[in-house]
Amino acid sequence: MSTEQFRKEGKRIIDWIADYYENVENFPVLSQVTPGEIISSLPENPPQKGESIDAMMRDIDNKIMRGITHWQSPNFYAFFPSNTSFPSILGDLISSGLGVQGMLWATSPAATELETRVLDWLAGMMGMPEKFKSTSTGGGVIQDTASTSALTAVIAARERATNFQSNKIGARHKLVAYISSQTHSSLEKAIKMAGIGTDNLRLIGVNDKFEMRPELLDKQIQLDKADGYIPFFICAALGTTSSNAVDPIRKIGEIAGRENCWFHIDGAMSGTAMICPEYRHYMDGVELADSFVFNPHKWMFTNFDCDVFWVGNRNELINTFSILPEYLKNKTTESGTVFDYRDWHVQLGRRFRSLKLWFVIRHYGIEGLQFHIRKHIEMAHDFAGWIKQSTDFELVVDPLFNLVCFCHKNGDDFNMKIMNKVNETGKIYFTHTKLNNKIVLRMSIGQTHTEPVHVKAAWDLIKQSAVQLESEEKLF
Amino acid sequence: MSTEQFRKEGKRIIDWIADYYENVENFPVLSQVTPGEIISSLPENPPQKGESIDAMMRDIDNKIMRGITHWQSPNFYAFFPSNTSFPSILGDLISSGLGVQGMLWATSPAATELETRVLDWLAGMMGMPEKFKSTSTGGGVIQDTASTSALTAVIAARERATNFQSNKIGARHKLVAYISSQTHSSLEKAIKMAGIGTDNLRLIGVNDKFEMRPELLDKQIQLDKADGYIPFFICAALGTTSSNAVDPIRKIGEIAGRENCWFHIDGAMSGTAMICPEYRHYMDGVELADSFVFNPHKWMFTNFDCDVFWVGNRNELINTFSILPEYLKNKTTESGTVFDYRDWHVQLGRRFRSLKLWFVIRHYGIEGLQFHIRKHIEMAHDFAGWIKQSTDFELVVDPLFNLVCFCHKNGDDFNMKIMNKVNETGKIYFTHTKLNNKIVLRMSIGQTHTEPVHVKAAWDLIKQSAVQLESEEKLF
Repeated sequence: MSTEQFRKEGKRIIDWIADYYENVENFPVLSQVTPGEIISSLPENPPQKGESIDAMMRDIDNKIMRGITHWQSPNFYAFFPSNTSFPSILGDLISSGLGVQGMLWATSPAATELETRVLDWLAGMMGMPEKFKSTSTGGGVIQDTASTSALTAVIAARERATNFQSNKIGARHKLVAYISSQTHSSLEKAIKMAGIGTDNLRLIGVNDKFEMRPELLDKQIQLDKADGYIPFFICAALGTTSSNAVDPIRKIGEIAGRENCWFHIDGAMSGTAMICPEYRHYMDGVELADSFVFNPHKWMFTNFDCDVFWVGNRNELINTFSILPEYLKNKTTESGTVFDYRDWHVQLGRRFRSLKLWFVIRHYGIEGLQFHIRKHIEMAHDFAGWIKQSTDFELVVDPLFNLVCFCHKNGDDFNMKIMNKVNETGKIYFTHTKLNNKIVLRMSIGQTHTEPVHVKAAWDLIKQSAVQLESEEKLF
Repeated sequence: MSTEQFRKEGKRIIDWIADYYENVENFPVLSQVTPGEIISSLPENPPQKGESIDAMMRDIDNKIMRGITHWQSPNFYAFFPSNTSFPSILGDLISSGLGVQGMLWATSPAATELETRVLDWLAGMMGMPEKFKSTSTGGGVIQDTASTSALTAVIAARERATNFQSNKIGARHKLVAYISSQTHSSLEKAIKMAGIGTDNLRLIGVNDKFEMRPELLDKQIQLDKADGYIPFFICAALGTTSSNAVDPIRKIGEIAGRENCWFHIDGAMSGTAMICPEYRHYMDGVELADSFVFNPHKWMFTNFDCDVFWVGNRNELINTFSILPEYLKNKTTESGTVFDYRDWHVQLGRRFRSLKLWFVIRHYGIEGLQFHIRKHIEMAHDFAGWIKQSTDFELVVDPLFNLVCFCHKNGDDFNMKIMNKVNETGKIYFTHTKLNNKIVLRMSIGQTHTEPVHVKAAWDLIKQSAVQLESEEKLF
């Protein structure tokens, strides 16, 4: 493809994306296709000869779009937001265009140094303690997901707890890790992958707000120590997945410090709220953490993947993950004056991901980000207010940030029926969880283009569907 | 940003990228900045108020570009190619625009089903055995890097070897893994991360072509078994990083089969050559493999990240990595009729990466890909021919594919001096390795826009630099 053709096709695709955002509300939010429908519409064999971009765009319009669940619709309230924004798309486009590898400083110094600077910016914007900045003992690195960051934290913790022996002799020590019963499944997965084993993972009980109970954590640690185990890792949630509960960070951090455990804070979605000073009391005690993760690709207008992982002591991380074969040696690495980010994570290759984050922060500015975060939280609180006023629905927890957990009083089956009925209309998409073994409906409000009018319409739709369902059930 | 502004700024960035490719040869290939130069040019604090895309593009031109090492320059011969192409950039742009999460089938059925179809296409295009297709017992999944795929393979192997107990009890068994002394460092890193430990990793010796010696592998396995170890994982390289050596796949696979070891093939760069039937004899025995990895983001015109990981038995993979908390449950997953790709790897969240791969395959067609691969290999062989004719340089190994390993007869220091002198000109960028403890220069030829004229100019520059250096040294 010539540069001339690229100019033409690229501009056409820019228009296609703009058209998409102008029309996104016309698509059913949750794709309505059945399993196998998309794949059977695609040829069984690849083409022998090249095809035109025209042909591909026709297939996107006619085949692929039917199988899209519209995460960028203002009517998307499922799981978590994965909100993007035009500046982020543009930053990512430049990254695709430059096509550089940021595995080493030398392989594109700007990719490393912009990432360092932007993550220091972000640490400052969120009121993170100095130790998490590159100018101090720590620093940040962009990872793909909070799952990978959890794995990174667990492995670094394993190494530190074994005097940096586990990489050499294997996960032989009797290590034991602590999360709450509400902690995200990626932590359990990380414990499996790192060779610790779920037998050595303790799920600590929670209180009626679904927050980890530190006295139970402490008790369990003492029991394990008496049994000859070595406690090595504790994860606290700054917003659990099911209900957005915040674990008592200072109390857990104090226990972690006393017991020499690596203290990881998972703020995958809700970490973004720390950009607004009025929410920072939720992370009181964060200076006690060894690592902290949050995802600008969830609720900070940055397209996937962009997960931020900060550590207080980068040497522990680098000592765990560094590897230097001859073919990667170079003068700058040997000088010790630069970061080679491949030593900060699982992967070797890495994309220039700080560009999109830089574009987002500069486009919105701190005030713009605060404005949008506060607006999302306000809409969630409005929604919670309507639930409170309703006689048929009840609020399961008071929302702290942008997630509303609620249920209809008619019980689990009825709630699932409401959810499926509403989702099948294609007008909105929301999902469920279980809390105290009961089905709970979740409205996760954080899409870039969601306005109060959308949230109001969603509530009306849910209410009406419940009324309809009730009358249908009475008929039989 | 309004859609109108996005149309305007997007088109301007498309033009910026086209301009970049038209002018890429005017930049020094290896960035000439010194450590800290870029970061100190960036403000210490983020902006309070939003800024314009204009301001950002000025900073890209004036600050960032100086710190770019130009992987997309036709004069880039370092490490490995990380070649992209305009169709790939466009496919990735659509993925950024749609901003969907492909973690579950339901979260965008097209993201899952297109990936399944395209990886089946690719398996067919490369002559992979049927078992690696989704229509049989296996299937493929796009991962970020070969490092992550190696980790995935090691963990699945660990689980299988322990009767799916290691996720539960931890990496407690006396497992032992086998690679050659030439295997990529990511395998050693995977062995560390998975809790196996490098004490339990055997580096098998190689022959004079740097291929693993299967008789030494067999001998080591017997020794380990006699010592009470459980051999569980063997990796063979289809093109080592240092010299592109191909391990004897059938012989190693037979040993792996007999000894119940997971057999992983790492074809990160050279796997692409299998698209040309005349190179498939190098992977004779591939049907004996449990997993196979190659990177379209290296030498198949697809921008990072796009690593293809195939397994012969997907159930082993899914049983290892599956996790299903309540908040991810949905009717389709429960029906068992679909793939949820988050069960095939480390991460939960995932981007719609098959779009760019689909665009690349359709744009080039099988014949177009074969044409470009053959052209790269031919240029490498031309370069090797010039080396052979030279009296000052010698060829270290006969190139199989697109990598030429050579050295000047004046020894290690002189070779490093040549390399640094040449790279400092900014005209080309190439790197080194060590083979048999001697410095070896590597020309990795696979950039999308590299033509014979570029390779000839590179050779002339290297030759001239050697002559100049020799005469300078004689002067002193």
